[in-house]
Amino acid sequence: MKKITEQTETKREKITKRAEDYSRWYLDVIREASLLDDSPVKGCMIMRPYGYAIWEKIQKILDAKIKETGAENAYFPLLIPKSFLEKEAEHVAGFAKECAVVTHHRLEVNAKGKLVPAGELEEPLVIRPTSETIMYHTFANWIQSYRDLPLLINQWANVVRWEMRTRPFLRTTEFLWQEGHTAHASQAEAEQKTLQMIGVYQKFAEEFLAMPVICGKKTEAEKFAGADYTTSIEAMMQDGKALQAGTSHMLGQNFAKAFAVKFLDQAGEQKYVWQTSWGVSTRIIGALIMMHSDDNGLVLPPNIAPISVVIIPVWVTDEERINVFAKAEEISQALQQQIGLTVKIDTREGRPGPKFFEWEKKGVPVRIEIGPKDLANDSVVVVRRDTSKKETVLMADINDHVKKLLDEIQTNLFQKALEFRKAHTYNINTWEEFQKAVKAEGGFLLAPWCGQAKCEEKIKEETKATIRCLAFDQPQEVGKCVYCGEKSETRVIFAKAY
Amino acid sequence: MKKITEQTETKREKITKRAEDYSRWYLDVIREASLLDDSPVKGCMIMRPYGYAIWEKIQKILDAKIKETGAENAYFPLLIPKSFLEKEAEHVAGFAKECAVVTHHRLEVNAKGKLVPAGELEEPLVIRPTSETIMYHTFANWIQSYRDLPLLINQWANVVRWEMRTRPFLRTTEFLWQEGHTAHASQAEAEQKTLQMIGVYQKFAEEFLAMPVICGKKTEAEKFAGADYTTSIEAMMQDGKALQAGTSHMLGQNFAKAFAVKFLDQAGEQKYVWQTSWGVSTRIIGALIMMHSDDNGLVLPPNIAPISVVIIPVWVTDEERINVFAKAEEISQALQQQIGLTVKIDTREGRPGPKFFEWEKKGVPVRIEIGPKDLANDSVVVVRRDTSKKETVLMADINDHVKKLLDEIQTNLFQKALEFRKAHTYNINTWEEFQKAVKAEGGFLLAPWCGQAKCEEKIKEETKATIRCLAFDQPQEVGKCVYCGEKSETRVIFAKAY
Repeated sequence: MKKITEQTETKREKITKRAEDYSRWYLDVIREASLLDDSPVKGCMIMRPYGYAIWEKIQKILDAKIKETGAENAYFPLLIPKSFLEKEAEHVAGFAKECAVVTHHRLEVNAKGKLVPAGELEEPLVIRPTSETIMYHTFANWIQSYRDLPLLINQWANVVRWEMRTRPFLRTTEFLWQEGHTAHASQAEAEQKTLQMIGVYQKFAEEFLAMPVICGKKTEAEKFAGADYTTSIEAMMQDGKALQAGTSHMLGQNFAKAFAVKFLDQAGEQKYVWQTSWGVSTRIIGALIMMHSDDNGLVLPPNIAPISVVIIPVWVTDEERINVFAKAEEISQALQQQIGLTVKIDTREGRPGPKFFEWEKKGVPVRIEIGPKDLANDSVVVVRRDTSKKETVLMADINDHVKKLLDEIQTNLFQKALEFRKAHTYNINTWEEFQKAVKAEGGFLLAPWCGQAKCEEKIKEETKATIRCLAFDQPQEVGKCVYCGEKSETRVIFAKAY
Repeated sequence: MKKITEQTETKREKITKRAEDYSRWYLDVIREASLLDDSPVKGCMIMRPYGYAIWEKIQKILDAKIKETGAENAYFPLLIPKSFLEKEAEHVAGFAKECAVVTHHRLEVNAKGKLVPAGELEEPLVIRPTSETIMYHTFANWIQSYRDLPLLINQWANVVRWEMRTRPFLRTTEFLWQEGHTAHASQAEAEQKTLQMIGVYQKFAEEFLAMPVICGKKTEAEKFAGADYTTSIEAMMQDGKALQAGTSHMLGQNFAKAFAVKFLDQAGEQKYVWQTSWGVSTRIIGALIMMHSDDNGLVLPPNIAPISVVIIPVWVTDEERINVFAKAEEISQALQQQIGLTVKIDTREGRPGPKFFEWEKKGVPVRIEIGPKDLANDSVVVVRRDTSKKETVLMADINDHVKKLLDEIQTNLFQKALEFRKAHTYNINTWEEFQKAVKAEGGFLLAPWCGQAKCEEKIKEETKATIRCLAFDQPQEVGKCVYCGEKSETRVIFAKAY
């Protein structure tokens, strides 16, 4: 037993404690759970199988929810002509600084024997940072009359935004996402779609990722480049910082006008369509990690975990091995077939201690330990990842127990996160309070704001806190702007953000 | 009735007949089935929802089959440093001529007010044409000892190969694919994996796409750049041309040596791993289209069709509409719930004729027509897409009938394609016969070949026919090379190819 403990300590030391260095803790959790590997291309991600499996689960669930709203998947080119990007002025201003530009279409050996770019393109192409422009160019052909509306398209794709300061999952040069793009006959319908989709994201985050989020509207300064306005879901991380985990944009007619996306309405008049776009990316995995994980590593909510239950057989002799493995297989089959779980049996040679800690670091919600003594007692040991609580469970009760336990873990993680957010949300009324709070421990600062961009900018400059959103369910309240003291009609959420 | 016929003719005229212009027919089928749209970026594809739905079905089925072989999905960066590509000499020689090169990381307004590339990269990056180099750079870190082997990784991704002459699905600048990459401790195991995976593709093509294929080995001239050898599945299109629909490469130790992918074997010695890579791309959709479609448009095998059955309600009065719709819904529910089919009810206003032809052009395997008279007779009209045969079926028999019919269609399409291939496969023994056959009607020419690259090249030069493969199940047969007359130990498949 002593040896295992020693091993444990060694393994655990690989993860920095949150209190010590939150940023390093985050990187350690990712590495020790084998989610990502360092990429030789700056700012890009190598998603290892276990990390990618989380994305596959997100895709599967979200894809079904998006299809339920009537959207269909399609695929548009990776490369966008520079001229397309230029058509919507705000859009190009927002993305020009971070575009990967393709200028040549082959490599050639030069006079010095070096391989250099050759075959220069007449017009440079940009790797899509988002697909509004390339899609809407085509939407203009697809849409002729009101009968073609609404047009509801979704795309699962990779995009590239050249970021100077990157952080795994949260801000990367290349990332994976889905981007939905819709066109409607009326403003009201487009606004409804904008809200419907941010609602889909909220429900997904809360029910599957156990991630309480605040749904609201972004300020002009924080909206998507080219949108009329942007809505987002904002989550609070364990260091009190905010993280935007999904956005839905009301694009108005800005792109419709730039790309001549018009339709003949029922009265026979040519009108511009009203549009929305909305997306969730691999960034949400970063939020998932930061929200629930602890000093022992990753913690995954059961509804999103690629592996729900890991069974660790413990044995010494060959005979024990055979018996224990047989029982493990039986339990695994029952859990898979009767309650539809994904179960992994760790059949590798080696002592159980390091295995326990490996699966703990990978955040598997439930661990079942089974050894010769358990067999004799007709029971197993069940350990939940979120609280580390151990229980002895009779074989006959395993299915029911595990099912109930997974529900409990899911609920517990959500509740814990919600309580954390409540405990770190502050009503702030004066500039002094604001400065103190933002320095002390972060969190969400609910403060009156006059609505002027200059106050927003000054506050950001002086404190690094930005307005995360004007929450939809915030009571309208008359007060005085926390910065300038002018009349304010709303209390907005300020926070430092990822 | 007359009007509908007129409409029909108009609609059908949109598809060129195969006998008239096979290439135009192919493009017409794609356009009329709404599979693709023209891309503003030369050689790229816009996959419309119905076209992408076919890819989604392929992905779902193939992904499960790949996972059954033990492979796990991962994701590697889109961008590859130029220096990586250069590490394997044959590989870079094969891909340098068709690389999209990223040289800058932003766009900037210049002195003339024009938006131009800025922020030149120190080292150009290439958009992956395939991912051997970027993956194996990382595999070198993942693999330390024989315990880490075999390593079985798959990736679903987009790739870019700058093609000068493109054709929708078959040869495009950007395409979607899966690429599997494995590393093994022994040559034998890697060779086994190479064969296993081409076998997975063969089975997939035959069982789901109803596409008979010949499995074999490529010649040196036709192998993948960097492989020891390449295996492929080759299908015969309706114009007698061959189409390579999937490949599996035995990479030997070429990349292992270039990227230092080594492991400590059981004896404690450092060894290079043995590797394979294998892929199927959106190109296979082109093969699917060309293999089964007819002069009326797309024909899809039931096992891959995104919609198995389309129900067309026929009505005049409102009362009829209500009754017919209710019955259509009932049939649809039964087919979906009891035999797991995807059913579409065409609820749109408008005459049935144009709807019939629209769904015919989309290749939906079975159409059910239901109107007031059918309701009165407690029956429906069932039409199969492959033969256009109509039958009246009693309501009570619909489920059984449709299930049987779909099986029949699947089998029929496979058999038809197989017979077509047999009828267009010729044993050729002399150069005269060869020249005549290749000019006359194409097809697969089984001819003795001495094994020399120069004969292969000369034949290609003079006839445009290439060696598709040395089929695995071809009897070894001593003969004389069809070109040079020297001793030949094998009869290989020559054909013009896509």
